[in-house]
Amino acid sequence: MFFEGSEKKLEIIVNESAPKLRSLDRTFWLGLVAASNADILSSISNEYCDAYLLSESSLFVWDDRIVMLTCGASTLVESACYCIDHLSEQAIAYICYQRKNEYYAHLQATSFTDDVFRLRQFIAGQAYRMGHLDSHHHYIFSTDKDYQASQLDTTNELLMYHISGAVADYLRGEQQSTIQISQMLQLEQLFNGFSIDQYLFSPLGYSINGIRGAEYFTIHITPQENSSYVSVETNIDLSSTPVDVFAELVRLLQPSSCDIIGFNSHIANKPFLNYLCLSHCAMPIEQGFTIHFNHYQQDCSELLSPTLL
Amino acid sequence: MFFEGSEKKLEIIVNESAPKLRSLDRTFWLGLVAASNADILSSISNEYCDAYLLSESSLFVWDDRIVMLTCGASTLVESACYCIDHLSEQAIAYICYQRKNEYYAHLQATSFTDDVFRLRQFIAGQAYRMGHLDSHHHYIFSTDKDYQASQLDTTNELLMYHISGAVADYLRGEQQSTIQISQMLQLEQLFNGFSIDQYLFSPLGYSINGIRGAEYFTIHITPQENSSYVSVETNIDLSSTPVDVFAELVRLLQPSSCDIIGFNSHIANKPFLNYLCLSHCAMPIEQGFTIHFNHYQQDCSELLSPTLL
Repeated sequence: MFFEGSEKKLEIIVNESAPKLRSLDRTFWLGLVAASNADILSSISNEYCDAYLLSESSLFVWDDRIVMLTCGASTLVESACYCIDHLSEQAIAYICYQRKNEYYAHLQATSFTDDVFRLRQFIAGQAYRMGHLDSHHHYIFSTDKDYQASQLDTTNELLMYHISGAVADYLRGEQQSTIQISQMLQLEQLFNGFSIDQYLFSPLGYSINGIRGAEYFTIHITPQENSSYVSVETNIDLSSTPVDVFAELVRLLQPSSCDIIGFNSHIANKPFLNYLCLSHCAMPIEQGFTIHFNHYQQDCSELLSPTLL
Repeated sequence: MFFEGSEKKLEIIVNESAPKLRSLDRTFWLGLVAASNADILSSISNEYCDAYLLSESSLFVWDDRIVMLTCGASTLVESACYCIDHLSEQAIAYICYQRKNEYYAHLQATSFTDDVFRLRQFIAGQAYRMGHLDSHHHYIFSTDKDYQASQLDTTNELLMYHISGAVADYLRGEQQSTIQISQMLQLEQLFNGFSIDQYLFSPLGYSINGIRGAEYFTIHITPQENSSYVSVETNIDLSSTPVDVFAELVRLLQPSSCDIIGFNSHIANKPFLNYLCLSHCAMPIEQGFTIHFNHYQQDCSELLSPTLL
């Protein structure tokens, strides 16, 4: 029943020498997704953005950028190479490639070190680890180019491990519905006015993409007992929403630990009720992003049950 | 500079149908150690025990049992198979095979699952994980046979990650001496009256074995910045020593996190000053051992520096 929910993430921003990305034909996107060993399940679009639900997570495309997340044993680094190869290195303004904390790193097709070696065959960049190897940690590769991000270019990622409580029980149950899940997660209140596209995997697993103008959110749930994982990511400014979105999701899903990763985030270092921030890191990079990593754990000494293997 | 300090550990107890283990010739022990890809560096002996310092940790031999620890990418599971193969499955009373929390599991020759598959080709047993996959965790394989351990058969293991402070700085320095290290660690006070055998590795690393009658202790230090690891293991009853041995070592080495693993331990769930016990587990097994796992972290929100890769 093990499935590696934790994602790799790729953001690519192109410059004016590139074609408008949304004008590229479907063959390009099928090739991009296939490079990660994923498939397109469905999509939604608005004036600014095309959002694809993938067999292993999500792809968002704007005219000047893509954001792609893939989980499982997918090979997202190959999608990065595919993009650089097809668009040309000169057309790239900025690339950020991330790997989130994995449960079973040894089951992945490559290590982050392998991925960086592969990326550097196509483009120059710096690679970092935030967090100790024996605790939650986050890997980032970021290109060296002369790009300058706006301070308004913000992304917030909430990664929850070992969820528990009523919503977790429902997600692990025999039968679910997308309507019931989105209601239990209060998504209409948390992400109001978004067009959504959601998918229930068999036997377990749930994905949703939402877009509103140029804004997006995406949630992916791997509810499996002992290796559950939920990721939430959005480019909306979470400091100005009517509801405290991440606090509410943590309250609903009761993870035993969680991480927040922020790019120019206004909610970095936020406290969560009943959680300790075990470690935190802030890294400004020359391309105009300050990258935050914060690792939290429930504020209690957890009584563990041994797992029979 | 990366070296996986964290060990695998093997304990084998033989029954009366087996030869006295200390009577086996050197060829047997060379073969046992070679199966793990290790070498014997030196040894000390007393009336009860032969203690070998290995290129990758330690081997202790009594007439009825062996305890062997190996670090790095060693293949200790093969030493277990070698023993069963040479002594016969019928001669085995009890085997416990452990894997401690590793920094880079993907660099190991095998996973614990692979190891259990291999062991079960030779002997039946149960396999367990104590602790979540995304936090510190400990793997144990334990045979099913009808063995009954004495409640006095106790082992305490202290595993320290990310050491800091004056002793850590010295261990990472340009020049060290075994005398200076054992003085800094106050080993004469902590383990009084033991015969010792110690070794300084190049460029870094320190091992020491000590024996006193049938009692032993062993300490292995991998001081490398960003992946430092120190293990301390002993079969003495730590609840009755004049000094609180583990508390003193934690105070001296200031790890950012540590684990205690106990077999019929009298110090299970001990608190450490300035540390939180994040999780704990107690597992009684039918062979007369209660196995404890406790995971601790320094009681502060750690400010992390990103590591350039």
